[in-house]
Amino acid sequence: MKYSNRVSSMQASPIRKLVPIAQEAKDKGIKVYHLNIGQPDIKTPKGFFDAVKNFDSEVLEYAVSQGIPELISALQDYYKTYDMHFGKDELLVTNGGSEALLFTMMAICDPGDNILVPEPFYTNYNGFGQSVNIEVNPITTKAENGFHLPSKEEIVSRINDKTRAILLSNPGNPTGAIYTTEELHMIAEIAKENDLWIVSDEVYREFVYDGLEYTSFGNIKEVEDRVIIIDSVSKRYSACGARIGSIASKNKGLIAEILKLCQGRLCVPTLEQIGAVALYKTPASYFKEVNEEYRHRRDVLYNELMKVEGVICEKPTGAFYIVAKLPVENAEDFVIWMLKEFSKDNETVMVTPAEGFYATPGLGRDEVRLAYILNEKDLHKAAVLLKEGLEQYLALPKA
Amino acid sequence: MKYSNRVSSMQASPIRKLVPIAQEAKDKGIKVYHLNIGQPDIKTPKGFFDAVKNFDSEVLEYAVSQGIPELISALQDYYKTYDMHFGKDELLVTNGGSEALLFTMMAICDPGDNILVPEPFYTNYNGFGQSVNIEVNPITTKAENGFHLPSKEEIVSRINDKTRAILLSNPGNPTGAIYTTEELHMIAEIAKENDLWIVSDEVYREFVYDGLEYTSFGNIKEVEDRVIIIDSVSKRYSACGARIGSIASKNKGLIAEILKLCQGRLCVPTLEQIGAVALYKTPASYFKEVNEEYRHRRDVLYNELMKVEGVICEKPTGAFYIVAKLPVENAEDFVIWMLKEFSKDNETVMVTPAEGFYATPGLGRDEVRLAYILNEKDLHKAAVLLKEGLEQYLALPKA
Repeated sequence: MKYSNRVSSMQASPIRKLVPIAQEAKDKGIKVYHLNIGQPDIKTPKGFFDAVKNFDSEVLEYAVSQGIPELISALQDYYKTYDMHFGKDELLVTNGGSEALLFTMMAICDPGDNILVPEPFYTNYNGFGQSVNIEVNPITTKAENGFHLPSKEEIVSRINDKTRAILLSNPGNPTGAIYTTEELHMIAEIAKENDLWIVSDEVYREFVYDGLEYTSFGNIKEVEDRVIIIDSVSKRYSACGARIGSIASKNKGLIAEILKLCQGRLCVPTLEQIGAVALYKTPASYFKEVNEEYRHRRDVLYNELMKVEGVICEKPTGAFYIVAKLPVENAEDFVIWMLKEFSKDNETVMVTPAEGFYATPGLGRDEVRLAYILNEKDLHKAAVLLKEGLEQYLALPKA
Repeated sequence: MKYSNRVSSMQASPIRKLVPIAQEAKDKGIKVYHLNIGQPDIKTPKGFFDAVKNFDSEVLEYAVSQGIPELISALQDYYKTYDMHFGKDELLVTNGGSEALLFTMMAICDPGDNILVPEPFYTNYNGFGQSVNIEVNPITTKAENGFHLPSKEEIVSRINDKTRAILLSNPGNPTGAIYTTEELHMIAEIAKENDLWIVSDEVYREFVYDGLEYTSFGNIKEVEDRVIIIDSVSKRYSACGARIGSIASKNKGLIAEILKLCQGRLCVPTLEQIGAVALYKTPASYFKEVNEEYRHRRDVLYNELMKVEGVICEKPTGAFYIVAKLPVENAEDFVIWMLKEFSKDNETVMVTPAEGFYATPGLGRDEVRLAYILNEKDLHKAAVLLKEGLEQYLALPKA
């Protein structure tokens, strides 16, 4: 039997495909420190669980396709704190940021169209694109520049008659970069001049460190009719398993189009939406505390990495990832080796090979993404294991 | 700003697009009996809520992309009771039957390909197809035949070099038809002879009445490598708001391809999966009771409909829908009129215009789908309202 080209040509998720190898290590009794996935260990605000447990209807009914009114309203209030003002008909609740991205892509691109994306990018942008025959058109950014954007000319040179949008994550996954207000205005200009949508993935909005200024595309009025904001409770409230995302846009026509896709899949789970309402009512002090914790973790991991000879990376200023260049030829081989061959006191560490975060062939082969989502003690241990593993790996006789 | 052709050309869900008009009626203080949507009033088994409430982890983490092992295992046990034996690598958990259908379509069709579907069909088949550039290639079935399949020749004549699959719902939504074992074998033959996948949407598997024999495509060994079974807890356990569906196939390669799509969207909500495990452990006596209730409701609605002059329909034998031909030119106009203009003692009824369940232009314009998902008393009231409304509507002076 024949499978479709669109799925056959998809790579397995670079974040998830090595999970079975990690499982094998665990089956052998080895403890694996997971720096490979953005699964925080921060407690989910208790309000979520309370709300879910207080649900007392006897029938678990469909919710409305747009999202329950209470959640739409909670989203409005949340955005107001960032001086973004969305009407009820400018918001949609989705099955995670994932569905928000997929539906947005479907609504603005037909097969063969492409979307500009700074690389390295969140690897699933490529997966979502392939699954619906949309190409990622990469704008290469570099570790040496802290993954900031290249010049306007360089970006514009990538645009062709099939380019429909610019998609970026800000704060950046996997780069940890925060775009400056100037960069945002440059993108806004390019979008206006070339009639492109701006898809702004801001799921890490709260994770900005070192007192840096953060500007959302939702704050740039001149392009409000072409800005689509992707959000999620996953990282914001450490509620990855809730799968509650959202789409916000002042372009009501777009929201109406995407609503058709939402109606097709009927609704987002009722209970998770009820829980998410509570999440969006979490007091702002929560972010302050969590933010401080992540900043601290970043410093721990970054400082340890800097002690490893040959490792190159910039100190990231947002999200909770670091992309690091390792002194190896093929980072995936190294990651697999760490899981299959290496352990110290029955412990090892798992990171994500970064090649899958690039669309340009060959780029990122020697890079990995590390998520600083463990507590200080574990993070420190993981960094030391990585250092020792790398040293042993480099000392191996070459095949 | 331009939207994609694929979403622009999508019709709004015929089941959901009239909801705002129903809301207007409600805002005027009118009680609306909803026969328009398959939202049962049967209680969700308590085990679901207990399982969710007993969740006691402090972090709501991502689940594995395939679905949690406990749910995969519960699905295996459930299928065994139907003499279907799936390995752990032959099952996937999805965000409702909706995602199961969408992912299956993506995995077997590229843009421009088509899928044979008996019409009238579940309207979202068309929506999912359009959103990913796959065409529904209709095989017309008729109320007069109880919506059974036409001859092999007629079906084969629809196949072209872009046809990749046959998709059918059995028991049928919206038709309520149960295909005979002979019909299934005919489809199996056609699929083998023309190298087609068989996508069998069996979410209404338990809703079979009058002692009729039910055969699943999962029981037809000769085609097991090309059969894909779509399932969902929504109707089975009256848990529509849980959004837990699944894909089962003995074609492990296909499951591996679809797993890539599952990895892209990360996971299905953790809590809902935990609840679904409890659902799949519901004792079989539950179905017996529920089935008896629906059979009774079907009789109530069918008998009332038969009293309305000019209404044509066959008594359905499965699912919980009836497709009826009304003595009107345009059923949608009538449905809107019932919501906007008609009420008796401040009550009215909402049904679904059936035109959206057909792909062939013009078909179904005078038909509606009615879901018999209310208790006997309400169902009876709704049928009487429909009768009186229809009589008034037919007596109106023509514009």
